[in-house]
Amino acid sequence: MSVSKLSLTRSIAMLSTISSSLLILNKPLTRALRFPIPNLPLATNPRGLSSLSTAAIGNNAGGGRAGALSPAPVTEDLQKIDVNPPKGTRDFPPEDMRLRSWLFFNFREVSRLFGFEEVDFPVLESEALFVRKAGEEIRDQLYCFEDRGNRRVALRPELTPSLARLVIQKGKSLSLPLKWFAVGQCWRYERMTRGRRREHYQWNMDIIGVPEVMAEAELISAIVTFFKRLGITASDVGFKVSSRKVLQEVLRRYSIPEALFGKVCIIIDKIEKLPLAEIKKELESVGVLEEAIEQLLQVLSIKSLTELEEILGDSGEAVADLKQLFSLVDKFGYSEWIQFDASIVRGLAYYTGIVFEMKQPRNTWFHLEACQTNYSDLGFDRGGKLRAICGGGRYDRLLSTFGGDDIPACGFGFGDAVIIELLKEKGLLPELGLQVENIVCALDPGLQGAAATVATILREKGQSVDLVLESKPLKWVFKRASRINASRLILVGDSEWQKGMVGVKILSTGEQQEIKLDELD
Amino acid sequence: MSVSKLSLTRSIAMLSTISSSLLILNKPLTRALRFPIPNLPLATNPRGLSSLSTAAIGNNAGGGRAGALSPAPVTEDLQKIDVNPPKGTRDFPPEDMRLRSWLFFNFREVSRLFGFEEVDFPVLESEALFVRKAGEEIRDQLYCFEDRGNRRVALRPELTPSLARLVIQKGKSLSLPLKWFAVGQCWRYERMTRGRRREHYQWNMDIIGVPEVMAEAELISAIVTFFKRLGITASDVGFKVSSRKVLQEVLRRYSIPEALFGKVCIIIDKIEKLPLAEIKKELESVGVLEEAIEQLLQVLSIKSLTELEEILGDSGEAVADLKQLFSLVDKFGYSEWIQFDASIVRGLAYYTGIVFEMKQPRNTWFHLEACQTNYSDLGFDRGGKLRAICGGGRYDRLLSTFGGDDIPACGFGFGDAVIIELLKEKGLLPELGLQVENIVCALDPGLQGAAATVATILREKGQSVDLVLESKPLKWVFKRASRINASRLILVGDSEWQKGMVGVKILSTGEQQEIKLDELD
Repeated sequence: MSVSKLSLTRSIAMLSTISSSLLILNKPLTRALRFPIPNLPLATNPRGLSSLSTAAIGNNAGGGRAGALSPAPVTEDLQKIDVNPPKGTRDFPPEDMRLRSWLFFNFREVSRLFGFEEVDFPVLESEALFVRKAGEEIRDQLYCFEDRGNRRVALRPELTPSLARLVIQKGKSLSLPLKWFAVGQCWRYERMTRGRRREHYQWNMDIIGVPEVMAEAELISAIVTFFKRLGITASDVGFKVSSRKVLQEVLRRYSIPEALFGKVCIIIDKIEKLPLAEIKKELESVGVLEEAIEQLLQVLSIKSLTELEEILGDSGEAVADLKQLFSLVDKFGYSEWIQFDASIVRGLAYYTGIVFEMKQPRNTWFHLEACQTNYSDLGFDRGGKLRAICGGGRYDRLLSTFGGDDIPACGFGFGDAVIIELLKEKGLLPELGLQVENIVCALDPGLQGAAATVATILREKGQSVDLVLESKPLKWVFKRASRINASRLILVGDSEWQKGMVGVKILSTGEQQEIKLDELD
Repeated sequence: MSVSKLSLTRSIAMLSTISSSLLILNKPLTRALRFPIPNLPLATNPRGLSSLSTAAIGNNAGGGRAGALSPAPVTEDLQKIDVNPPKGTRDFPPEDMRLRSWLFFNFREVSRLFGFEEVDFPVLESEALFVRKAGEEIRDQLYCFEDRGNRRVALRPELTPSLARLVIQKGKSLSLPLKWFAVGQCWRYERMTRGRRREHYQWNMDIIGVPEVMAEAELISAIVTFFKRLGITASDVGFKVSSRKVLQEVLRRYSIPEALFGKVCIIIDKIEKLPLAEIKKELESVGVLEEAIEQLLQVLSIKSLTELEEILGDSGEAVADLKQLFSLVDKFGYSEWIQFDASIVRGLAYYTGIVFEMKQPRNTWFHLEACQTNYSDLGFDRGGKLRAICGGGRYDRLLSTFGGDDIPACGFGFGDAVIIELLKEKGLLPELGLQVENIVCALDPGLQGAAATVATILREKGQSVDLVLESKPLKWVFKRASRINASRLILVGDSEWQKGMVGVKILSTGEQQEIKLDELD
């Protein structure tokens, strides 16, 4: 493969005469007026080697720099670039980054409360890790390419396969159960329509080595804890829960091959997106009999565990697992957050048992048109419906599909986009302004070193300091102090400094006093 | 482009009979022995549609599950995957992640102390952002590809071009000076020899809008603060500092075109890696006269600012900037960390003024052969020499190369690999074990909900809890408590629970008592 395509960059040879008025104003005039006198023991003006360089030489030949900075040394490239991030990706300027850090802090804090350990994996993985044959949407959207060593690689669309890979790799050195979490960026390549994004961050929590549904109950409890911390209640959102074993038991009655199970799940997962006729057609096309389809759809419409038990009987694992989960959820104390819905199957092929998701918020309508900022305009699918806020389930058989020994496992993924939208809708987004505790300013250019000393003293005491690096009028300094929400302005003036003191102004009250350096804290 | 290449994945149809002994042991026997009786109002055994499915049907036809879990529903894919992360990339299992989080915390904490705001950019950028023509190593190692929309994109090799892009995009809405930092993953595609890595994390701090060298002094001060926090002293490491204006002034005397400046810098940067004859040849090939080359190399060997001043005179910006920097550094109080070395030019084309780097530690020899862990074996270049721990400088002209208006700027990059190696060498790596404050365990399977309640109470008080999710013997629980460094073991037993109490054991002392639920904290 070629290293890069120069034809794609519009490079224009740039002459070195461009100067910035900003720079002219900021450079001290005295220095700018000086002229470097050659004093190397050699001819001062040998001929340039290339005719191309004449213009540049010409610009320097005069020698004087007329108050401007020295000409730009980086002069061979000029390319007008697109100042936006690539389609479907985000920049995080400070205001968005504060929100992201706050969100991630809450992900991490809840994970810590539950005794989970943080892990991470490469954002670039072998494509083989994500290529499953069940017809998943995630597969069609794989951000994959061939690297320069001709390996098929992909930007990870999810974190679970990497986790499975690491668990197999670590093998018997791991003490089960593992309770691991991760906060990582995931990618999907989609046609860009309004409000679609190609990357998002995902919080995952996984429990490896626990076959009982206590594990699922614990995971959902973590998500509920997260919501409660943020001020979201059970009347805002709710989990829908089912088990893939429901589907499995129905299919088994019709002797539908287990090998079709993954495909059937993926089709069923589209039940809200596609017309029913389309779902039926797809099920037929993979080989499910019409009669089975009718029964399947009937079972999928059930929203009551009692009704499910009436149809499936009480002897199967599906009903037993679900009953146990709902009983635990009751004891965990979050039963108002969760309801049974047989139509929930999730869109990933590897789930084997309990599955859950949180999709449409209750009693809430998201205003699609109001979505403007980076952190808000991208959480929606084509139909204008919300993507899931989070979802997960049990995947007891994933490791063996990679050639490892199976270990019972379950986990969830929780995206960073829809939750921010929900918090905004509910007025629950925190005010996260920049806040630097002190602003330190020298009143005289000769005291900048002294101001730096003051800054160092405060920083050694754990105080944050914005040190004014230029000679600026006090009016500018006050404006900046206000912008960074500083509590104190510390002025380093000559007469105070000679006494080992600085001027300290509490900005909220206007109170001002002189304080000895060693009493600053 | 094709979505994915199936031929690359070794998919083998897997029968559904594989069962895991682990699962058999863990599943309650009573439930596993039950048999789901079809009671749907329809024929129980219609023929499978495809002859391929006979085997799977056969497996289910018997109906009994002989104590095992239900057969694996995800049965169509079996691929033996490589359990290692892609070449040159890292997994972060918990022990490595703790170290990474600790390191990043220190990056962020120092940045906070200096009043910097965190930002981030997409890890995937347009290739055009990184394609410069100066012959930089970073360009040759670009991890670039064509996406499915035929756009040339690249995994970012550094953060500065993205920062410049965002600054241009935000334009006049920004209040200068900006003090921004980022901690982001960067990629380079290199031939894999021993100890080379394709990704690393980089801490960047940048000051945008300050033309004075106070900005550089402040940045180096931040790095020194970082080292001091970690216990590294000036006798361990030191900065080498110069200015690109030194080179520029020499080149100007020979009327060497400014357009060559970037290329000359990139060649000079290789001075430690290549034989001198090779450097000379490369300089000749871009058009520098032999005489100029000799003078250039002579100037580059200077390690004293006084000597530099003797040769260049005191009227140029190079000497003035450097003298001012060293004067400030003295007042900042870290002059023992820094020395002038005219050979420092840095390997990126866009630097225009002061440049600095920290490469070989003083008085230290890294034991290359001792490097085994993820966080230690990958920080070295081909020659066995250390990569720079950090490096940076002033880049006043970068924005105009992208078509924006120039703003004076400087910054540094600080990698995550060499610093970890240095800390290890110095015995300064912290002990970072897992620590969960409480382990909560039900003494009876019927009390698991109660144990969950106890866990919830503690978590609401900010305490971390590892909840035992299975019925395990106490011996196992104590072993786990020890592994997670729990302070307290909380046992939920029937008789205590009926009194609203739990058993609490302080694990360090063995002290044990019954505590009322509402007195737990």
